[in-house]
Amino acid sequence: MAERPEHSKGGVYSRKGEEFDRDTRYIATRVKRTVDDGEDAVPVEPDRYRLIAARACPWANRTIIVRRLLGLEDAISLGLPGPTHDADSWTFDLDPGEVDPVLGIHRLKDAYLKRDPHYSRGITVPALVDVTTGAVVTNDYAQMTLDFSTEWTEHHRPGAPDLYPEGLREEIDEVMARIYHDVNNGVYRCGFAGSQEAYEAAYLRLFEALDWLEDRLTLQRYLVGDSITEADVRLFTTLVRFDAVYHGHFKCNRSKLTEMPVLWAYARDLFQTPGFGDTIDFEQIKRHYYLVHTDLNPNQIVPKGPDPVAWLSPHHREELDGSPFGEGTPPGQVRNGERSPNPVELA
Amino acid sequence: MAERPEHSKGGVYSRKGEEFDRDTRYIATRVKRTVDDGEDAVPVEPDRYRLIAARACPWANRTIIVRRLLGLEDAISLGLPGPTHDADSWTFDLDPGEVDPVLGIHRLKDAYLKRDPHYSRGITVPALVDVTTGAVVTNDYAQMTLDFSTEWTEHHRPGAPDLYPEGLREEIDEVMARIYHDVNNGVYRCGFAGSQEAYEAAYLRLFEALDWLEDRLTLQRYLVGDSITEADVRLFTTLVRFDAVYHGHFKCNRSKLTEMPVLWAYARDLFQTPGFGDTIDFEQIKRHYYLVHTDLNPNQIVPKGPDPVAWLSPHHREELDGSPFGEGTPPGQVRNGERSPNPVELA
Repeated sequence: MAERPEHSKGGVYSRKGEEFDRDTRYIATRVKRTVDDGEDAVPVEPDRYRLIAARACPWANRTIIVRRLLGLEDAISLGLPGPTHDADSWTFDLDPGEVDPVLGIHRLKDAYLKRDPHYSRGITVPALVDVTTGAVVTNDYAQMTLDFSTEWTEHHRPGAPDLYPEGLREEIDEVMARIYHDVNNGVYRCGFAGSQEAYEAAYLRLFEALDWLEDRLTLQRYLVGDSITEADVRLFTTLVRFDAVYHGHFKCNRSKLTEMPVLWAYARDLFQTPGFGDTIDFEQIKRHYYLVHTDLNPNQIVPKGPDPVAWLSPHHREELDGSPFGEGTPPGQVRNGERSPNPVELA
Repeated sequence: MAERPEHSKGGVYSRKGEEFDRDTRYIATRVKRTVDDGEDAVPVEPDRYRLIAARACPWANRTIIVRRLLGLEDAISLGLPGPTHDADSWTFDLDPGEVDPVLGIHRLKDAYLKRDPHYSRGITVPALVDVTTGAVVTNDYAQMTLDFSTEWTEHHRPGAPDLYPEGLREEIDEVMARIYHDVNNGVYRCGFAGSQEAYEAAYLRLFEALDWLEDRLTLQRYLVGDSITEADVRLFTTLVRFDAVYHGHFKCNRSKLTEMPVLWAYARDLFQTPGFGDTIDFEQIKRHYYLVHTDLNPNQIVPKGPDPVAWLSPHHREELDGSPFGEGTPPGQVRNGERSPNPVELA
């Protein structure tokens, strides 16, 4: 999504003296298997919805991973805006003619205005767009991936994992709540803090949470249960950006991820699992943060380091109990046209 | 010193599209044992000169270290401006009444103007001031420490090391030349680059030099010969600031110093040697860079990490040949009034 979209004029993401406060008012129409009368929901239907999800954005990255793990590529198509955007909108810079080939628009904002001509909040990714109307159905990223897991089951690939198993939901929700507040959003609270005090409070809370995770993951391979769940997806998208962006740009610098041995091994384990690392484009990630946040990085120079090849080094997490897909199987190759333009490869 | 003082209006240290180009025109009066007729030099004389050297500044840090290693505390007094300065001058913020107790001035600039009422270049530290006139004698930091070593010998403490031994000067000069261009100034060329291209060129050159140093120091404890020389002092003052500042603030982020095992052990070895780590104040160092360079860090938030206590961990460099002071001895305790306000200590 766009961070603090309500204030995102000309690259200004923090306000002096203020804590960073994420705008969490989303277009929250659900996409459900069965829609009750009067419910704010539309029916699951293959080929009807298009997921718009920039690779750069951690919140959108979740949806790209979950769609691929579940094998929803045939049911839900994928549109990929470029890594940078102005105060107005994410745009389809990477597509031929800079226009999304299905929606036929340059600015994602147009799909929001189709939904509501007076829409005034953030033009965020991920957004699910109804291709029959060209209008945004939902940009509620947290509900979106859970609905992929629980409402779209009929369209999952054979062998798709259960990322949100009923028996574990309470624990998953609890873990995800702390990860959201202290880690996913915690890094933004460091970076967009409007005062030294707000920054230091966010920093302490972030690293306390990372210490808790380091401890939790020492003897267990995944966050909850014996296989990958939604909680792992949500932690991964922040960890994978940590050293490339958050450590320097957001001043989350007690240590690098590479200096937290358990979390670093855990993150590499996921990175090397089909469906995770193959969605990542470190160039787009770095360009997004360092070019868009001109209030934090006015000269817009994009750091060259660190070398992402370290993500491919052995992690030894397979020595722990558990297996990534439980009873299921890994996803196959990335679809043509959906490969990361800048994959991490051994030299 | 102040970086690029000729452009230092309102915290602007880089110019778009330009490479960073350090102003190297200094007031270059020497302080010498014997002064020839017509020479731009003044005589060595104890109690006549005052060294003005902010702890924050790496170029000034050299002089604080060398003065202490050589035991020149009784011969040359020390004035310590605070870590931040405006576009106009370093100032004595830390002294009672914000006035240097010997020179009686608040702004170091006044000592430059005493030397030259039309002085228009940078108000830099280190500066050696003649207390009998209140005027700057020299701010040529590179010559200053060499003169401490070679011209002030009569006033060295018993057991003072020879930091610039005659038989090794050619090699020392050669090593120091590369360290200056690629490392000491190299980090500034990364941070103040006015274009992506200039940044990337400086980054490559910096890390090539660090790889060369990593290699050079694998089997030898010090850069040249078997003991500490001026070359080690000059490398140390950049390395000690690397993870706290240059890695994030100047985007020198191929790796942290802690991820270059030889250099990290070498730097800790020096840090733990009397005369090095005891001159360091990480709080002042961080406040200097993050508060002064408002063009790089407009929100002026100072990162909390990393924890400097890691500097005290075992380095095992004593297993290599060589000893820090050769035939000499380590300096004694830091003088009263000259202790770092924020020393690194085990919890």
